[in-house]
Parts: sequence; structure tokens; C-alpha cells
Amino acid sequence: MVSVVAVATHAGVSPATVSRVLSGRIVVAPETRARVLEAVKELGYRPNEMARSLRAGRGRGVALVTGDVEQGIYAALAKHVQAELEALGLDLLLFNLGHREDRLRHFLERAPSLGLRGVLLSSPHIMDMAELMPLILTATASGIDVISVSQDLSAYGIASIIHDDVGGARAAAEHLIAQGRTPIAFLGRIATSAIGRARFEGYRDALLAHEQAIDPDLVWDISEGYRADAGYQATSNALAKGLHFRAVLTASDELALGSMAAATDRGHSVPGSVAFVGFGGLGWGVFSRPSITTVSLDVGAVARAVRDRFKGEDEVPSTPERIVVPARLVLRQSA
Amino acid sequence: MVSVVAVATHAGVSPATVSRVLSGRIVVAPETRARVLEAVKELGYRPNEMARSLRAGRGRGVALVTGDVEQGIYAALAKHVQAELEALGLDLLLFNLGHREDRLRHFLERAPSLGLRGVLLSSPHIMDMAELMPLILTATASGIDVISVSQDLSAYGIASIIHDDVGGARAAAEHLIAQGRTPIAFLGRIATSAIGRARFEGYRDALLAHEQAIDPDLVWDISEGYRADAGYQATSNALAKGLHFRAVLTASDELALGSMAAATDRGHSVPGSVAFVGFGGLGWGVFSRPSITTVSLDVGAVARAVRDRFKGEDEVPSTPERIVVPARLVLRQSA
Repeated sequence: MVSVVAVATHAGVSPATVSRVLSGRIVVAPETRARVLEAVKELGYRPNEMARSLRAGRGRGVALVTGDVEQGIYAALAKHVQAELEALGLDLLLFNLGHREDRLRHFLERAPSLGLRGVLLSSPHIMDMAELMPLILTATASGIDVISVSQDLSAYGIASIIHDDVGGARAAAEHLIAQGRTPIAFLGRIATSAIGRARFEGYRDALLAHEQAIDPDLVWDISEGYRADAGYQATSNALAKGLHFRAVLTASDELALGSMAAATDRGHSVPGSVAFVGFGGLGWGVFSRPSITTVSLDVGAVARAVRDRFKGEDEVPSTPERIVVPARLVLRQSA
Repeated sequence: MVSVVAVATHAGVSPATVSRVLSGRIVVAPETRARVLEAVKELGYRPNEMARSLRAGRGRGVALVTGDVEQGIYAALAKHVQAELEALGLDLLLFNLGHREDRLRHFLERAPSLGLRGVLLSSPHIMDMAELMPLILTATASGIDVISVSQDLSAYGIASIIHDDVGGARAAAEHLIAQGRTPIAFLGRIATSAIGRARFEGYRDALLAHEQAIDPDLVWDISEGYRADAGYQATSNALAKGLHFRAVLTASDELALGSMAAATDRGHSVPGSVAFVGFGGLGWGVFSRPSITTVSLDVGAVARAVRDRFKGEDEVPSTPERIVVPARLVLRQSA
């Protein structure tokens, strides 16, 4: 690779002068500057971005920490965030936790030494904040902007860009109630997921507001996995027990697909005898048959808010600590 | 953050001695070494990984360059590769091209200055290699191991870890022929995708081997997008034209889902009147109704081969230049 020294020799100036010209910070005689830039161009010199960011004290990388990037909504988030960061000249690093909290701790411990600009936490897991806060504060003290992009951690002073999970689930449950689709079951991860819990809250709020009882037998808290197979299993179990329900509000489109399959396999018509609502608004949900009515999440808006946060080169971000992106019920065939 | 100087002061040695102990390269008196390590432990010193990799001349990051990470198979690849790299202490950087070739060129131009250990190319696009090779060679000369993990670029001297796309498609077409499901249509991206083209080759080989004509009207080359909506559109168009076919071999599970929906919406039973085969083996394909018969790709095996490639800390990789991971036909309801 072409070195600064080679550029300096070629331009007949000192390496320090080359650095001055390239940093753009100190006044250099126009003629000297032109000579240096000519040499840079002729030799094809490219400053080492890693060395430069190290000197500047801040990296060009932003890490996205996901629970499971194979889940459609997180892949969509990764895609949108990467595009927005790239527009700022920043790189996306991906850390997939595979739903293992020890990996989050391990990652946060390393974060300060990775030269990152920011860390985007998008794991839905309920975290042991007493244990994690010291690590997060250490990262923040090292100049890393730690932001939650899934669950609301603003109570801990962590900037949070979140979807309106409660409002979205409430709207979905109210739609089902308005259609006379009661009783309504809830299918999601509640005990271990902050997101699942928020969606459950929206479901509960809507039922209570319409004087519907919350039947514990119809609240299906899945502990492992979050995808189609878990939805299939939970719904099969409920049907095998002979539980009666007219609709299932699920916490992801994958869960809705699995849940629908279980009902179909047992001879129930969808949405005739049971209606289903998903969460996420993934592209393929339009093409399952029946297509999936869903609470659509605007990951593009989250990604743009992330970009706003990082667009100031050196300033401390001044955007609000808590941004709530609206969720929207999209009606299709399943409910 | 604790500095080397603080550790040196605490241990009563020079900073150079601390560096010597931590690098593990030069013999230091055992007693001195113990004193330094004690100080490191007491002060909670962590060497700056970025600075260290910069000195070592090789980064700890490996970039995965995808065409569209929202497509399920690439999200799965990102997940598996990240897990394997993490086991080696390496970080995954994600670059999503959004199917824009200029972004690939731009990324490769920057690669040498990013301090990467490796670049994994997983875009399916047919690339202008005359233009890209100089950039790839520059990256390789900077110590970056450039590997293709989707299309076969071994003819260009680029290590390639690929799925058996040709063999997988051939097996799928032979299954359909054996079931008497002819004529068979092919749905995929052929003109612009090396992967789609390989899958088309498998389809063509099987048809020719069984003395079936290749009907150009039944080869649906989709140029934009690669997901469910493109499959829906192409299949709707074919049905609107009154084309006759008994099966559709598609180049992704998403395409199969969209294609099936188009047939269903026009009153064709699946698989009764038309059978469908997907490609990828994504988890949700088990739970669509009908579930999707698919050519399952083993992304875990690709990720393990990537790990083998990077496990030698300083050695030049000695694994073969071309690894072909078998693809397997998984029979479900749709064919």
C-alpha cells in the first residue's frame, strides 16, 4: 500500500505536511496543498481508515446486537440500518446473540476495545440490568453511543428508539373484538421478552377496556424459540386440550404462520372458525394463503432515527431519549 | 480506560516490558512477568484490540457482503457465519448491497483500509470481473482473504465455498419428472444471477436427460427482486396467458410461496393440479399450507468451512480452493 512517506517524497514535502493537508485542519500554502493532492492522486494513496479513526478516538463502526437475525424483522432492521449508516460512511457490525445472554455480556465487555461509534441493542430479551449497566456505562464513557432499538430502556438513561408494541397489539385486539372474534388467545414470549410482554400488555389493555376476561388458558407464553415451530406447537397443544377460541393474536408473523398451520391441520377453517393476527409486516405474509393480517412495524423509520443519531460527526446527540415509531394494523385475509 | 503506563507504574517496570509480557513474544524473567500480570489483573487493564490488530497488520473483522440480507437464506448465512467467527474471536461486519453493483465496487475499494481479515462475497449477482479483479487483488495483496460463499469464482483464483446449486435443481426436476409432473416451469433470476443460472442449469440438465423439451415460455427469468412478490407476478402472468404446466421449480422458498399463491388465487389446487419446489429450506416453509418441498441448503456447513479457513492465526489457508456443499431435496406437501 502507498505510504504517507511515499506521498511526501513524491510531493517534495515532509510527511507531517501531507498529514496536515489530508486532515484539512491546519492552513497549508495553497501551492503546497495542490502538490500534495497531486501526489496523492498520482500514487493512488488511500489513508488507512482504521488508523485514522484510532487517532480520532472514535471508530467508524456501529454494532447491531440482535437476538436472532434469522427472524425476519431483525434481518429487515439490519438491512435498513446498514443502508442508513453507509450513507454516513459508517460500517455495520453484526452480533447475533442466538438468545444467549452471556454473549451479550461478553460483547459489552469487549465493546470499548473495538473502537466502535455506537452499539444498537435490538435483543428482545429481558436483561439483568443490574449486571449490564456497569458494562453499558463503561462503553458510554468510552464514547460509544449505546441505543436500544427494540425495548424501552429509557428509564435507565439509555436512548430508546422503539416500535409502539403496546399500541399495535391493542389495535389488533380491538379489531378482533369489533369483528366479534372472541375469545381471543395471545401467543408470544412473555416471561423472557420485553417486546413480547409489551405486546401482551396491548392485548390485555384492549380486552379489559372491552370488559373481556383474560383467560390464563388462552395466554400461551412460549419460552423457547420464537418462530413458526413454536407457534405450531403451542396452538396444537391448545386445540388438543379442547380450548375454545375464535382468534389468536400472535407476537410475530412467523408465529402466526405456525399457529394458522396448526389450526388448518386440525380441520379448522381460517379465518372462518379462527382468525389470526401476526406482528411485523414481513413481505412474505402477503403471500401465505390465507395472507396474514398483521401489525406492521416501520423498521425504515427506526433506521432513519438511528441515522439522525449518528449524523453529527463529533457532537453529542441531541435527539430525544425516547422515540416511539407508530405501528399500523394491516388487514389481509387471516383476520 | 487503564493504560499500559498505569500497568507499568503499578508493576514497577517500563511500559515496554508490559508490552513484551502481553505480546508473549520475548522472554521476560518469570518473576517480572508475574508482577505485570498481577498488575493487569488488579487494574482491570484491557489491551485495545483495534490498536493491537493495527500493529499486527491484520484486523479481527470479516465482512459478509450480501445482495439482500432480508432474503431468508442470507440471514441464515449471516447468523451461522457470525457464530463460527465469534468462536475464533473474530467479528462479522455486514455489508448489504441491496442488489446494487456500484456498492460492491465501492466496498472493495475501501476494504484494504478497513483492516479486515477477510471478505466473504455472497451476492448472487453476475459481476463484471474485469472491473472487480484489480480491486480484489489489491485487497488480497493487503492480506485480506477474499472468499466467495455463493457463486463459484474459483476460475478467477478466488476460493469458493458453494452449494451444489446445479445438483440440487437437477434432483428437484428429476423428482418432478418421476412423478409425471410435466411440463415443468422454471422460475428464477437467470440473466443477472450466477446462482439462479446454476439452478436453471440443473433444471435444464434433468429435462434434457429425460428427453423433455425446454419450452422458452416456461422459463420465467425475473429481473427485479427475488422474493415472493416476483414469484406471484411471474406466475400470474403465465396463468393469464393460458400457459400449461404441471409443476414450477423455483430458485427460492420465497418465490415458491408467491408462485403457489398465484396458482391458488386462480383456483388451481396445490399440489393437485400444479406442484411447487422451493430452494433454501427455510424454517417457515414447513408451516405454509401446503408446506413447501424444497432443495435444502446447508448454510451451517458453509459457515464451518469459513471457520476452517480463518482458524489459522497467521498461516496462509491451505484448504481447497473450491468446496461444494451438497444440497438435499426435502419432500413436503407442495410436490
